[in-house]
Amino acid sequence: MAEYIESLQRLAEQFGRLQGVGRKSAMRMAFSVLEWSEEEAGEFAQAILDAKQKIHLCPICQNMTDREICPICADPERDRSVICVVTDVKTVFAMEKVREFYGTYHVLHGLISPINGITPDRLKIKELLERVNGGEVKEVIIATNPTVEGEATAMYLAKLLKPFEVRVTRIAYGIPVGADLEYADEITLKHALNGRRDF
Amino acid sequence: MAEYIESLQRLAEQFGRLQGVGRKSAMRMAFSVLEWSEEEAGEFAQAILDAKQKIHLCPICQNMTDREICPICADPERDRSVICVVTDVKTVFAMEKVREFYGTYHVLHGLISPINGITPDRLKIKELLERVNGGEVKEVIIATNPTVEGEATAMYLAKLLKPFEVRVTRIAYGIPVGADLEYADEITLKHALNGRRDF
Repeated sequence: MAEYIESLQRLAEQFGRLQGVGRKSAMRMAFSVLEWSEEEAGEFAQAILDAKQKIHLCPICQNMTDREICPICADPERDRSVICVVTDVKTVFAMEKVREFYGTYHVLHGLISPINGITPDRLKIKELLERVNGGEVKEVIIATNPTVEGEATAMYLAKLLKPFEVRVTRIAYGIPVGADLEYADEITLKHALNGRRDF
Repeated sequence: MAEYIESLQRLAEQFGRLQGVGRKSAMRMAFSVLEWSEEEAGEFAQAILDAKQKIHLCPICQNMTDREICPICADPERDRSVICVVTDVKTVFAMEKVREFYGTYHVLHGLISPINGITPDRLKIKELLERVNGGEVKEVIIATNPTVEGEATAMYLAKLLKPFEVRVTRIAYGIPVGADLEYADEITLKHALNGRRDF
């Protein structure tokens, strides 16, 4: 049994704490590490420590970075007058893959959710307002998920941004390209209908 | 894109080197680590180093252990006169789960496979012969997978063991031919053990 090898068991437990890793996968990963050389295992351990120590939030957009300012904020080609507000860092990655957006981002690091104790002051909203207050910003695109929390946060932000002279927009929600209308859920269909545009 | 955060990318690459972890899962795991506290990440890194440093082979059965002698070999309740020869450590785990075998093990750490450059001298065969030569052993159960390499290794061992006064058996074909012992269900493994036959 795995219990027979304490340090293997402990390593498997650590892998098991990772999001989306089950008990069996965790043990397989632990075995994997044992097959590596001591040097390789050392590199792995160092990569974990490095990532934790070096990565911090970009002081401008609150995205994760290991440089002083994140490469997007530091890029002179990016349009600083447009800010796309996203829930988390993963969404920045997803948006960047599209290569369709040339503005900057602002990462909230969560959504307002009173039931989970996440009040607006726990999100990076103050930092967003400071950026908008700077005067350079012309448009804020709110790209939170179309969930209850995402909608509530979007509404809250829209209200907060009203006093500033900026255009506040919300990305379009509708039927995904390639999907079948027959199987679309009602809320998506409603969004798709309400967001209809002229040909 | 992920490339923007070098240390995150490097961590994801390390996760991606683990067996059965794809590019997307690796990135998800790297993100997971960033959500941990620095202390937790430190524990993870230490678990990796510990596992590599502390785990070695049991001098008797060649199973992995972080003690001087593995708990199975050290257990006075286990029958030292019966040795079950297995391909790898994972098979020991699988066999122990059945709670049907009360002998000891011998881990070969591979199967003879000339095409992959694995010759008998690269396996823990010498150590097995030494144990059998000790005189205490009455039966050697060969529990390699029913694959070409598994069969070849079993035949080779049976031939080597002939000069000794021991019963040499092979676990029964309860295991579907071509399958991997590691993934066999417990009942199949139990049948395979009980149905073992003389060579």
